[in-house]
Formats: sequence, C-alpha cells, structure tokens
Amino acid sequence: MNSHSPQFFMSEALRLAEKALFTTSPNPRVGCVIVKDNEIIGRGFHEKAGESHAEVIALKEAGSQSEGSDVYVTLEPCSHKGKTPPCVDALIEAKVKKVFIAMQDPNPLVSGRGIQKLKDAHIEVELGVMEAQAQLLNMGFISRMTKQLPYVRAKLAVSLDGKTALHNGKSQWITGDAARVDVQYWRASSCAIITGIGTVVHDNPKLSVRLYEHARQPLRVVVDSELNIPLAADILHEKPLLIAYANDKQKKLPQLKALGVECLQLDDSGKVDLTSLLKELAKREVNEVWIEAGEGLNGAFLKANLIDELMIYYAPVILGSEAKGMFTLPAYENLENKITTTLLDHRWVGQDLRMRFKLK
Amino acid sequence: MNSHSPQFFMSEALRLAEKALFTTSPNPRVGCVIVKDNEIIGRGFHEKAGESHAEVIALKEAGSQSEGSDVYVTLEPCSHKGKTPPCVDALIEAKVKKVFIAMQDPNPLVSGRGIQKLKDAHIEVELGVMEAQAQLLNMGFISRMTKQLPYVRAKLAVSLDGKTALHNGKSQWITGDAARVDVQYWRASSCAIITGIGTVVHDNPKLSVRLYEHARQPLRVVVDSELNIPLAADILHEKPLLIAYANDKQKKLPQLKALGVECLQLDDSGKVDLTSLLKELAKREVNEVWIEAGEGLNGAFLKANLIDELMIYYAPVILGSEAKGMFTLPAYENLENKITTTLLDHRWVGQDLRMRFKLK
Repeated sequence: MNSHSPQFFMSEALRLAEKALFTTSPNPRVGCVIVKDNEIIGRGFHEKAGESHAEVIALKEAGSQSEGSDVYVTLEPCSHKGKTPPCVDALIEAKVKKVFIAMQDPNPLVSGRGIQKLKDAHIEVELGVMEAQAQLLNMGFISRMTKQLPYVRAKLAVSLDGKTALHNGKSQWITGDAARVDVQYWRASSCAIITGIGTVVHDNPKLSVRLYEHARQPLRVVVDSELNIPLAADILHEKPLLIAYANDKQKKLPQLKALGVECLQLDDSGKVDLTSLLKELAKREVNEVWIEAGEGLNGAFLKANLIDELMIYYAPVILGSEAKGMFTLPAYENLENKITTTLLDHRWVGQDLRMRFKLK
Repeated sequence: MNSHSPQFFMSEALRLAEKALFTTSPNPRVGCVIVKDNEIIGRGFHEKAGESHAEVIALKEAGSQSEGSDVYVTLEPCSHKGKTPPCVDALIEAKVKKVFIAMQDPNPLVSGRGIQKLKDAHIEVELGVMEAQAQLLNMGFISRMTKQLPYVRAKLAVSLDGKTALHNGKSQWITGDAARVDVQYWRASSCAIITGIGTVVHDNPKLSVRLYEHARQPLRVVVDSELNIPLAADILHEKPLLIAYANDKQKKLPQLKALGVECLQLDDSGKVDLTSLLKELAKREVNEVWIEAGEGLNGAFLKANLIDELMIYYAPVILGSEAKGMFTLPAYENLENKITTTLLDHRWVGQDLRMRFKLK
C-alpha cells in the first residue's frame, strides 16, 4: 500500500480542529493526529479553554505506540504552561519522531518557541503543511494576536438591488429559511455579535444561537450612542450583553444598570468610538465578531476600515429605490474613490446566493 | 458502432442555428442536419432573412443521399411560401424518411401546419427533441409571435451594494473589461437597444455593436419624454435610430428631423408610453430588446411589468448610500409587495459576477 501524503493526515487534523468551531474560544481551534506505519493511531482536538489540548488527547489515545511516530498538528504546540502543561513537553516525553505543523503560533511573544524546543530535543519538524487552511480556521485568533483586534465579519441580507429593509424598517424576511439557518452557523462560530440601535428598535432581535445545543452564547453588543434602547427590548434579557454608548442623553443608564446590563461609555463626539469598541472586545479575548446591523452602523464600520469580511446573502427579489440600502457612506465624486473588495467565495444557500468579500 | 441518440444530432443542429445569432433576425435562428446510417451527410443554418433556409442548405449538401434519411431541425419547417419556397415541400420532394423537430412554429397562424403536411406525405415526425434548448435560442421570436411583444432584457452593471452610478452620474466604469466585452455579445444578439435620456446626457454612448464584424447594428432607441437630447449627442449619428417622446417641450423636433432622426410620439400623460413603444418595436419585427438605462427608466419598465429578464453584472466594489440605485419604484409598505424573480444562471465574467433573473 502507498504511503499517504502529509496533506492526507493534516486534513484529518484540520477536520478534528473544526469540531471545536463553536466551543474553543478564546483559544484557537487545534486538531492533532498521531501516525505510525501509515496509520492513524491517535486523534485529538482542543474542545474548550481549560480542557486538554489536542496533542495531549491524541498522545493518550496512541499510548506507548507514540514512540517513533509522526505527529500532525494544525498549530505550533505550546511551550509555556497555561491552564494545562506545555504540549511540547508531552511530545518530547512520548519520544515522537517527527512533528508536522500547519502554522506557527501567531502570538509574536511565543511564536517559534515550541518549534525550537522540539528541535532542541532532536525531533524533526516540518512547518507549513496546509498552512492556508489552518489560518482560515483561526482568523479571529490570528487577528487578535497580531493586531489586537478581532476578525470582523459583517452579515447583510439584501435584495438583488442591494436593499436591506423597506423604508419603514421592515426586513423580516428578505432572504429565505436556508439563509437564516446559515446565519446560525456563523453566529455560533463568533465570540461576539454586534448590532445597532436601529435594528434593536425595528426588529427586536435576541441575536442568540439556537440551532446548536452545545454552543456557548456569544457576547451580544448593542451600539447605542445616546442610550435609546427601549427597556422592553428582548435583547436586554440575553446574557452576556454589553451596551456601548457615547452619552446618556436619554437618562436610561440607572435603569439599565438596575437590569444588570453592562454599559460601556466609548465616546467619539457623540458617537460610539468603534475602534475603541473592537479593541475592548479583543482585550476581552473576543476572536471573531459578527455584525448584524443596518446601513448606518454598517457604513460607520466600513468607513472606519474595521470590517475584514462581508458576508452577503442576495435574495432574488427587488425592493426598489425607496427601501433602505447597505452602507451609509459619504458621496464620492469620482469612481476612483470606490471601495474595492476581493471575492472569497460564493455558494447557493437555498434560493439565495451567499457571497463573501474580503476588505482591507 | 452504437447509434447516436436523437439528442446527439439535434445538439449539432442547435449549434448550427447559433451561428446566426447576430444575423438572422427578424427571422428565427434555425439549424438542420441530415443523417443517414448514423452519419451526418448534410448541415445547414439560416443565416439571414431572404437567404436559404436551414433545411434547404442541408438537403443540398446531402444531395441524392437525402432519400430515406433522417432530418433534425430546430424549428418546425415552414409550409408557406415566404421570401423562399416552403421547406416542407423540399423535404417531401427529397423523400426523407423521418423528421425530428425540436419545437413547433410559435406563430399561432401556421403552427402545426408544416408537421401536418409532412405527415400527409407519409413522412414520420417526432416533435419535442431538446425543445427547451430550442426555445432559448428564439425567445424573442417566440415572444413576438405569441404576445406581439419583443423579449426584453435589461442589463445593469452595479456595485455589490446595488449602485449603478455616483450621485453625479459617473458610471464609467464600475464593472471590468470582461463584462463590457460580454455586453457586446448581447448587444449583437439584440434587434434593438433602448436607453434613456439620462444615460445619453451622462455617458454620451453610441450603443453600437463593435466586436463582431458581420453583425448588423441594432435599432438604437432613446426614450426622451420631453426631447431633452443634446443635439451634439453621439447617438444622433448612429443608424438606425428612433427617439420615442411624449411632447416637444424643448422644441427640438424640427432640428432632430433636419438631422434625419426618426421621432415617434407615444404620449402617456407626459411620459413615453413604454407598452406602446414595445408594441411598435414588435410591429417593426424586433424580436429581442436590450435595455441599457439608469434607475428611472429601469424602474418604469419594471413597474409596467415589461421586463422579461434582468442581466446584472455585480462588481466587487462598494459605492455607498449616496450613489444611484437600480430601480426607481414606489415605496412598499409590506415585504409581500416585493418583486420576485427566478435565477436563470450565474457565471463569472472577469472579476464580476453575472446573474440572470427571470421576471414574470
């Protein structure tokens, strides 16, 4: 029988890592397989912060067979003691022969240390097997480690003429059931969901994760510059919740505090300072942010160059010129001013077309 | 060797018919192959009105071998003498054995007559082989024969947020080179191109067919309710040209007539009556109409339910809320009022995504 390629085994490690898509934050998603004689003898993934790392679980399954084995891991093994002992030590102790690593740890303070420690122990290391795929799994973690900002996706559900709601704010529903199920997947993958006061007033959403039983609820964030939020808004009963505001024009702060809601003042001339908000979220170990908002907040995030990715569901319907658009932006005088994006992928979601565009 | 299927030979007939995509109007596109002993012995397509029909050309190539052959033709052979003698007579005279026909003649006055005449001459007839594909080739001809209206495609080139031009009217260019080349193909396939006075004023287009040497120039139609057209507009030098107007508010009629431009008054309370315009075009044997206009005229055609198909090129750019949209329409109060469409197909055209939606 032919030997499998390193990509074959790394794919399995990536598949394992993905199992923790909804549970592992603030830690990165990591998968590991142990291979001996062309066969997988151990599998592991990191399910939750505080619990065992992928490598340790895989080594445990392989047991004494680990000696002389090849290890495939989607992220550089940790060399420092965190909530659990360093994985590098476990690999050295198990006397593995070679470690294939998809990508280095993105944290500049520790990046490369695990690899060095393995090499010092005379374990072979091969870096970069399926690196791009491994990066996709942890865009948020990488962004937070390298830029002290979360990875920000803005979701829009629009008509084919780019309208997100009728003139009266009605937007339920433009896209179909399948698109709304897909949104649940992305909400569940995110550490925080940001919305604006307009959406809260018009749609009264909970922005909760429903379809996935074991998923944690993301931090709900309402951007509400003057604290206009109705005290009967459903979202006020969701936990965890954060309201970002600029000033207490509506004198609601005491009532909101009485309801146990955390309110954070981030004033930028009467508007919420969105850059400060994202920095604050990164400090709270938020890796991935999902924005579900209207044209005002979408435009503000876009203008501040804070969106990494647009996820747009296009429904095959027309709402016309009086309906609300996607991004409130200043008037451009020349087409050179247009904002350019790169299409990441597109797929059908029911009758709607989902397109993902990369910004920046 | 296995016998080929009827679909195999009809595909070849359809491929031949397509060769006349840019030349055959007002006649339908028709292709024909003659088959004997599982081999094609004659091929033909109808290239231009007044010239030989597909069947006659194919029979001529097959010569005396035609006797006892199978004939594949994409449209019911004509039974009446037009500019050329009836094809049915030629088929009977050639003593063919069997005729496979993709679709009946859509003209209700003659539909089925050719088939009956073949049957009366004891020639076998099989109808409906690849009928859907044959219909796609002649959407315009079918529409004109059955509804006394051309088949109407509206083309829009938009940003991902559904904007067709900046607030100042600038729209050159939102989409890329490849999209503009693709537009040439559709212009060349069309019998008439309609635009609005706004587009003439802002872009000064010629709306001519450039890339295809042998293509005829379509009838250019400008919808200009009050005859605002600048006398220096390039399109005034294009032939053939028709200006549809409601009233001569700008007193330009004499000057336009002096330039040799045909002006047609179709007044509907100060606006051009678009239904009457399309009926007039059908009377002039226009099968397919291609609209390249701005939000005003697009919205008016849409509101009057006169568009069969939208062909939208989405560029991966953002123009923002101040830019111009796709369709000027009244404000809807409920999402039930939305206009629904069916997606026909989508494909990449360079970096832009082209989507075709069917209305009605």
